[in-house]
Amino acid sequence: MTYDLYYWPSVPGRGEYVRLVLEAAGADYRDVARLDASEGGGIEAMFAFIEGKRGALLPFAPPFLVAGEIVLSQAPVIAAFLGERHGLAPEGEADVLFARAIAATTADFVAEAHDTHHPVGVSLYYGDQKAEAARRAEDFRSGRMPKFLGWYEALLAANPAGHSWLVGDRMTYADLGLFQTVEGLRYAFPRRMRSLSESIPLVEALCKRVASSERIAIYLASDRRLAFNEDGIFRNYPELDGE
Amino acid sequence: MTYDLYYWPSVPGRGEYVRLVLEAAGADYRDVARLDASEGGGIEAMFAFIEGKRGALLPFAPPFLVAGEIVLSQAPVIAAFLGERHGLAPEGEADVLFARAIAATTADFVAEAHDTHHPVGVSLYYGDQKAEAARRAEDFRSGRMPKFLGWYEALLAANPAGHSWLVGDRMTYADLGLFQTVEGLRYAFPRRMRSLSESIPLVEALCKRVASSERIAIYLASDRRLAFNEDGIFRNYPELDGE
Repeated sequence: MTYDLYYWPSVPGRGEYVRLVLEAAGADYRDVARLDASEGGGIEAMFAFIEGKRGALLPFAPPFLVAGEIVLSQAPVIAAFLGERHGLAPEGEADVLFARAIAATTADFVAEAHDTHHPVGVSLYYGDQKAEAARRAEDFRSGRMPKFLGWYEALLAANPAGHSWLVGDRMTYADLGLFQTVEGLRYAFPRRMRSLSESIPLVEALCKRVASSERIAIYLASDRRLAFNEDGIFRNYPELDGE
Repeated sequence: MTYDLYYWPSVPGRGEYVRLVLEAAGADYRDVARLDASEGGGIEAMFAFIEGKRGALLPFAPPFLVAGEIVLSQAPVIAAFLGERHGLAPEGEADVLFARAIAATTADFVAEAHDTHHPVGVSLYYGDQKAEAARRAEDFRSGRMPKFLGWYEALLAANPAGHSWLVGDRMTYADLGLFQTVEGLRYAFPRRMRSLSESIPLVEALCKRVASSERIAIYLASDRRLAFNEDGIFRNYPELDGE
């Protein structure tokens, strides 16, 4: 089966949390909004779903995945669906469920990272909320980043199957999500990530393990991998960073 | 099986999204943090899980549910797990998955409602971020509330199984989540909800249907149902409301 992924074509954003699972699974997929309109692609094809022209299962927002009758939105929900289908999930009911909770928590962390540059509203430009952004970013760097990253570190330290992966003894979509989030934080908050680095050795090792896994290494070197930029969730605004 | 729900004892908050599913399912459960310490309850029992004293599956935050070996956090993930176990989920893979995406989207909506009074950071008091809150609330009322509520209305209008429920032909945890969110918004933003009311007739009807369903009606009249208050997600701060 060929999966159709729909996401904004110019930013990694939340789409990347799905794309990494598709890539790690070696799944056959089309990145529809990045295709030409002549191939049925483009953002018009994406909006057709959101506007109800393609059926009753309306996504609230990208990313969403189409697979036969399935139209599935919400990055952590899609990642879990794909991971469980393609051997990128843990085994056993308790661990399968726990991985879903990890991915949902990562999505919360990502939303908070986004809100450092948009604390007042997504409908406004960053330039219209710089003062509020500075306050929110300070709180994020001092409180939220150590809390979330410390939680992943604690999960790795406590995992009875070893300290390589967040849950169970193999790479799952939960690990891929942590990898992408750490990459994004390194881009957006390089100074803060350097000062936190020593406190999260197991997280750092996990990220290296993900980046060097066979399919992900090939993917990261390909032109399918989009660079972070200042239209996305993780933005390099030096005034929001600090130790 | 008796489920153990762990959540802050004095606010409905995100715990209510789990509690409603347990109540609608007629499930046997303990609301642990609201029990006395002599019964193994209290918030110390909750923190024991978060601090790693009860095993490797560490919740990031309440609510979480314990069921045998399962320790599951994240309200939309728990609600889906319970709903799918207890006949409060739709049938068919595409609809089962779609309900999960609805619940995850509702969780995002709830987080945005929370951030109207805490746009700068959860570690600060509302009184320390009132100016930012006023801006964020304005954006939420004018942009986000109609967008989210309009999406639920569109789902109900498009549902091929009828306009009673968000997905499929019976009440699911996705409907329970929408009900609770609308209740919270009516508490926090009564003026805005009145001005939006005419544009969401199917949502309004769904909420009445949920409230009058047998088990939920009994629950809402019981002392197990906690009232909204100004320590929770949905807070009645009149200065943040408006038409």
